[in-house]
Amino acid sequence: MATPEQQAFHDELVGHRLILPSGVPGVWARSDAFESVLQRFDGRVRALAAADGAERLHFPPVIPRRLLEHTGYLDSFPHLAGTVFSFTGSEVQSRELSRRVHAGEPWAELQTQTDVALTPAACYPVYPMLRGVLPEGGRTLEVQNHCFRHEPSGDPARLQLFRMHEVIRAGQPEAVIAWRATWLERSLALLRSLELDAHAVHASDPFFGRAGKMLAASQKEQGFKFEIVVPIASEEPTAICSFNYHQEHFGKLFEIALPDGSVAHTACLGFGLERVTLALFRRHGLDAREWPAAVRPALDG
Amino acid sequence: MATPEQQAFHDELVGHRLILPSGVPGVWARSDAFESVLQRFDGRVRALAAADGAERLHFPPVIPRRLLEHTGYLDSFPHLAGTVFSFTGSEVQSRELSRRVHAGEPWAELQTQTDVALTPAACYPVYPMLRGVLPEGGRTLEVQNHCFRHEPSGDPARLQLFRMHEVIRAGQPEAVIAWRATWLERSLALLRSLELDAHAVHASDPFFGRAGKMLAASQKEQGFKFEIVVPIASEEPTAICSFNYHQEHFGKLFEIALPDGSVAHTACLGFGLERVTLALFRRHGLDAREWPAAVRPALDG
Repeated sequence: MATPEQQAFHDELVGHRLILPSGVPGVWARSDAFESVLQRFDGRVRALAAADGAERLHFPPVIPRRLLEHTGYLDSFPHLAGTVFSFTGSEVQSRELSRRVHAGEPWAELQTQTDVALTPAACYPVYPMLRGVLPEGGRTLEVQNHCFRHEPSGDPARLQLFRMHEVIRAGQPEAVIAWRATWLERSLALLRSLELDAHAVHASDPFFGRAGKMLAASQKEQGFKFEIVVPIASEEPTAICSFNYHQEHFGKLFEIALPDGSVAHTACLGFGLERVTLALFRRHGLDAREWPAAVRPALDG
Repeated sequence: MATPEQQAFHDELVGHRLILPSGVPGVWARSDAFESVLQRFDGRVRALAAADGAERLHFPPVIPRRLLEHTGYLDSFPHLAGTVFSFTGSEVQSRELSRRVHAGEPWAELQTQTDVALTPAACYPVYPMLRGVLPEGGRTLEVQNHCFRHEPSGDPARLQLFRMHEVIRAGQPEAVIAWRATWLERSLALLRSLELDAHAVHASDPFFGRAGKMLAASQKEQGFKFEIVVPIASEEPTAICSFNYHQEHFGKLFEIALPDGSVAHTACLGFGLERVTLALFRRHGLDAREWPAAVRPALDG
């Protein structure tokens, strides 16, 4: 459910044709004016990652379903995950499928689960690619991808499909922790150069259920996750960048080793590109051509 | 199933780290070297579309499931469509889901069909946006998106998720037909400037089942669909660009009208971006830095 303030912002965005509703909550098209701002910000992140020596990889917006199963994602976030189902039946069954579709009857049971799932976070398909022994100094990678979260909402800042630009580091624990601290400063500086009121806070993942609430509280206490939040259209500021330190989780799971044979640690940070774009429109107005003179060069780098 | 030639090309691409297998047939990551070629070709199509006055829109890689149902896609291509399923159960059911995942047991029945489906062709979400009366002269639009086809294959030119750059025209029948002919010449010229051995052929869609074979034969005869084919790694050349004339199909379905009140006709053309990129690597070699001097400026426009 959207708050009145979120609904009003949504309607303003639609009125300015920055976003075009699809009829499904959390799924909308973007105009070129919206996309242009998003791409320019994305270019700034790409430049920072390149300066950091990150290797760019490019993934489609699906991952092997096996990866979702293997990483424990379904234990923590079963409600957010999406898998792809297709029809694999006979011609007779296809006629039944058509009949049901035209009659407006349920037809889900005529599809079966395929081997692919929607990408839950841009970094997920990266870890299996790191299997083996890392080079001295570890590795830094960079990806940008569409991610899926099944949480239909009228809040324009809560999409079912949204893009995440992530930088991933694998290496020694101290190196990974120091890298994350550097990127926190770097990210705050980038966002503040765009005159966004950006702050870092300790955070937790949206674990499922009552047991999940305890996991979230413990995660927040341990300081393994923090976020950068900015005002968009909620009472509380909205997270637009997230930093996660996984310790040995992915290193163990995918057998990523340091040169001395010990398990590599990993961390990642991800910018939510639609959210950053929305924050900029919220802060500077819905016509990017009229933004403050200082913001435009900061966006173009 | 891939032929030995397709398998050999796949292995070469992997050997040169242009593509990185995910473990699922038809789903792979791309290196920056692969992606850079794809983006440069994409830029050429974008420039042609801009010169044509096309309005760019940007969609996520999912559409409302209702759109798939409403357009008849499931009558013709039930085997290719993919819908998204998510878990919407209780905490007790989530524990059962976890148990099954860890035991390697089927867990599909614990998910339910959501309101979204994977985008079957980049142009699909455009037509509902055209509802109403078109301006004098009609409209031209442009989109680029990931599309899903459930046809797992070891052929590197047959992906489950691939990008399509489409240009869409809605207007009077004669205008739409003339526009399609212009774009056929334009597209052939673009591909030939890259020294690809490109030819136009009459074509048909991959309709499902035996009845589908008859539909396909009739479609081919009527000349409503043609494709540009180039050699990649099959005995027959592979389609890398497809032109479709829908006549009144989408105009009727989404009530798209001409200024005189009659139903608008639509046509579209789409470049398969991964296939164009593969065709270029096949033709000119796996190291783009060593491509003929004439090809590089043609790619950069």
